[in-house]
Amino acid sequence: MPDRSETPKVSQPAVRRFSLYYRTLLEAQGAGAVSISSRELAERTGVTGVQVRKDLSLIGSLGKRGLGYPIPALMRELGRILGLDRRWPVVLVGVGSLGTALLNNVRFRRKGFPIVAAFDIDAVKIGVPVGGTPIYHLDLLPHVVRQQEAWIGIITCSADAAQLVCDRMVEAGLQAILTYAPVTLEVPPGVSVRQVDTLVELETLSFVLRPGRELSEDVDRPVG
Amino acid sequence: MPDRSETPKVSQPAVRRFSLYYRTLLEAQGAGAVSISSRELAERTGVTGVQVRKDLSLIGSLGKRGLGYPIPALMRELGRILGLDRRWPVVLVGVGSLGTALLNNVRFRRKGFPIVAAFDIDAVKIGVPVGGTPIYHLDLLPHVVRQQEAWIGIITCSADAAQLVCDRMVEAGLQAILTYAPVTLEVPPGVSVRQVDTLVELETLSFVLRPGRELSEDVDRPVG
Repeated sequence: MPDRSETPKVSQPAVRRFSLYYRTLLEAQGAGAVSISSRELAERTGVTGVQVRKDLSLIGSLGKRGLGYPIPALMRELGRILGLDRRWPVVLVGVGSLGTALLNNVRFRRKGFPIVAAFDIDAVKIGVPVGGTPIYHLDLLPHVVRQQEAWIGIITCSADAAQLVCDRMVEAGLQAILTYAPVTLEVPPGVSVRQVDTLVELETLSFVLRPGRELSEDVDRPVG
Repeated sequence: MPDRSETPKVSQPAVRRFSLYYRTLLEAQGAGAVSISSRELAERTGVTGVQVRKDLSLIGSLGKRGLGYPIPALMRELGRILGLDRRWPVVLVGVGSLGTALLNNVRFRRKGFPIVAAFDIDAVKIGVPVGGTPIYHLDLLPHVVRQQEAWIGIITCSADAAQLVCDRMVEAGLQAILTYAPVTLEVPPGVSVRQVDTLVELETLSFVLRPGRELSEDVDRPVG
């Protein structure tokens, strides 16, 4: 396996594929498998076999013909690359129905991304824990981020408030933000933003529903 | 502008970028702009300028130096490509906190993706509309899909039930599925699945937080 410093620059789609491989390996391991073929990994993730083999060879993992890839070693390497060998405390701002859904999801804690605190400006919500997570006034964000050593901020407030909340997160020292608000956030260099927008997903699907359209694999290719 | 039949195969990342461009143009138009430069479009979407110009030239839109791209014409063409020139009724299965959050979001209806019906198996939830959307027993799915001419299914049920729900959707004739359940769904050829997984997004962010890591643009590039 190559040293970690050898793979400094990986594309977002590649990181997403690594995360999908990791989850699929976890599922396969749960079902008792000790190795997996690139073909099975491809079928279960919806990525082409060629892309799977390319991705895995580039992180130094070589499958053996007839034997496939050893699951534990591959999971270890993918886990290291994805930063899953440690805990990343998360804070969330906006305790509406979406925020509540995320706070009630035990999966993040189990997978090393505990939501350690949530914030709102609604006095009715402050002080009443959701899913075991305390809810504070937004003004306490910098203090709690420091105290809890949080790394990632999740924005589940309204579109109107999202940029303000983002600015507060950046001021508090967070360098990674996941937003569900349907606006483009401006952040200084060095801060990473990922956006989940259900409408973008629906538009991708409506694209494919148009007669004569076909959506190609998750790998980027030129249009036309 | 090229005929639509000339661009049959577009990658998922490209469609996502088109959707981001469209939203950004809508924002710019709302702020009173009539044209936009590729640079501004790049800055506001986080895509490189080169990629923006490549994407837009391939759909037949050419910016003029010093003038940029005319917003109304570009929106019309992107809207056509994304299938936004019509209405795509959506059904949702799983009226938990995430399902409720989506049902309460008026944005989907406004943007041509009305959630016309939702389904659950919990007798307490059935019959009580959420966000104005009626909630039916899951057994009524095929009937309602036919009656409402729904095109897209959203899965917000538990991971355990997701494959079963997906099978029911496919049986009911839906060919486009958006799932929030953290399992890999198996579907027959011709059915498109998009998955939103918050954990995958968090893992992408934890990747970038590791010292020495840098996440490249949304365009796919080889690892290493």
